[in-house]
Amino acid sequence: MNSITVKSPASVANLCCGFDIMGIALSGLYDVMKLTKRDEPGISIKHTDRYNLSENPSENVAGVALQAMMDALKYTNGFDVVIDKQIKPGSGIGSSAASATGIVVAANELLGKPFGKKELVSFAMEGEALASGSRHADNLAPCIYGGLTLIRETSTLDIIELPIPPMYVNIIHPQIEIKTSYARQILPKEVPLKSAITQWANVAGLIAGFIKSDYGLISRSLNDVIVEPVRSKLIPGFDQVKKKSIEAGALGGGIAGSGPSLFMFSENISIAQAVEEEMKTVYQDLGIEYKTYITTIGEGIIVESLS
Amino acid sequence: MNSITVKSPASVANLCCGFDIMGIALSGLYDVMKLTKRDEPGISIKHTDRYNLSENPSENVAGVALQAMMDALKYTNGFDVVIDKQIKPGSGIGSSAASATGIVVAANELLGKPFGKKELVSFAMEGEALASGSRHADNLAPCIYGGLTLIRETSTLDIIELPIPPMYVNIIHPQIEIKTSYARQILPKEVPLKSAITQWANVAGLIAGFIKSDYGLISRSLNDVIVEPVRSKLIPGFDQVKKKSIEAGALGGGIAGSGPSLFMFSENISIAQAVEEEMKTVYQDLGIEYKTYITTIGEGIIVESLS
Repeated sequence: MNSITVKSPASVANLCCGFDIMGIALSGLYDVMKLTKRDEPGISIKHTDRYNLSENPSENVAGVALQAMMDALKYTNGFDVVIDKQIKPGSGIGSSAASATGIVVAANELLGKPFGKKELVSFAMEGEALASGSRHADNLAPCIYGGLTLIRETSTLDIIELPIPPMYVNIIHPQIEIKTSYARQILPKEVPLKSAITQWANVAGLIAGFIKSDYGLISRSLNDVIVEPVRSKLIPGFDQVKKKSIEAGALGGGIAGSGPSLFMFSENISIAQAVEEEMKTVYQDLGIEYKTYITTIGEGIIVESLS
Repeated sequence: MNSITVKSPASVANLCCGFDIMGIALSGLYDVMKLTKRDEPGISIKHTDRYNLSENPSENVAGVALQAMMDALKYTNGFDVVIDKQIKPGSGIGSSAASATGIVVAANELLGKPFGKKELVSFAMEGEALASGSRHADNLAPCIYGGLTLIRETSTLDIIELPIPPMYVNIIHPQIEIKTSYARQILPKEVPLKSAITQWANVAGLIAGFIKSDYGLISRSLNDVIVEPVRSKLIPGFDQVKKKSIEAGALGGGIAGSGPSLFMFSENISIAQAVEEEMKTVYQDLGIEYKTYITTIGEGIIVESLS
């Protein structure tokens, strides 16, 4: 095997109350990456998309992640990488995570799977750190494991796969920019104990709801009393989108990662379509450009071809 | 049916990281309550135990809970109640909850089950409020539902039954007094966001561990970075008991409710026996009287006889 093509998905981290600990992979929205082994050492990266990302491997999320893996293997040959990024950087739905995970999963396949999933997450974290400035795995783990993952602890990478029932996921990406570092900077350093208890009660309820496929419980638990009240102020139209989506039948939702994209869960496609119409209307009225997607919870990275 | 005898169990609230939201029923440690219908209105209470609790129904946890239920039914006849309390008041393992729940479950049986479990919890809360000064259901719900319960929200009583794998539960009750109100008063009003995130990550891990019967994950998640560091200072020997218990093979544990009892989970009886020996040694060395129990997670209130 010399060449592999993978699709690496968008993802949603946090899921309201699950700030910094949970994430899901999405289906239907992927970066496409082709990786070819070569005899010469080093990594060459070519982007065929329109996002003007650096093709210098040490300044490219995918390059840094792949290099971390090659270093661990003491791999002396090289790779040619072609990336067609379809998940816009800075959208809040795991664009850098898709790059960082897609490339290490692809290389691992090509090399006969020397590494397990957890090790792949740790290599991908090196790339993610380049993009966000902090070591987080909440977008990475769902890309590699698929579905819903919990990161109980980041330093030891205690990753837990959790069940989640079928749901439709609306994404709306208003074309504004929020820096992840700024979204992190405005968080309070201290929070009321009472709010913290409310938050962990909702985290517990959300996981219980996922496990029991109890959509009512999921809906009641999709509630973030700590981060959303602060970060939602950075996103014009947030309150309206949330209110209108829930009126249209959505189970709930909020900010995807650190934004600006918003997500909503729905039980069926017709609700998701109604939610999308409401979301569009809000941003049309505000005169803000947007992109919307109706998708589902996905299985993570998909190997397209191997030759 | 005129008369019923029930056994109402001890319980452990909080379970480390699950402060204020989780609780389990225990087996093997029960108050015994006999309830007999009578034609005259009112409630008469007789205690056959040695705890000198008030037998005035309006000053007795069981009396207040039963009265709340009778008021809801507009019930005009009365009850004779005999209580043999075996769970020492102030022990931290739900003595008042056993009284408050046992009596309403017993009366509900006698009256042909007019109420569901959630309504019974709400009547029992009236009694619990008399004992603790605050409306909490984390000890009540497991007595009525059995096993492990989550209280996602107290005001609407959003109670969720959760699976929990078989475990042995060590309880040690050092014979010191901690007032629930004081244990609550010393809690910080604000907590670092970072600690709160650690706590809800552990809550998520603990529930996932219970659901997957993953004892390793349960062990890693039984970690309270917010309440235990403050409250454990009120309990002599706490750090030693915890350290020695874990060295003896316990999965983990901490303060039962607001203390002073401590609990530890273990995977099998021989570990639980070793843990008990370690616990005893700590309090013998400290010269503090104690009681210990080795028990399991229980099914909640048991109807002993109905005639």
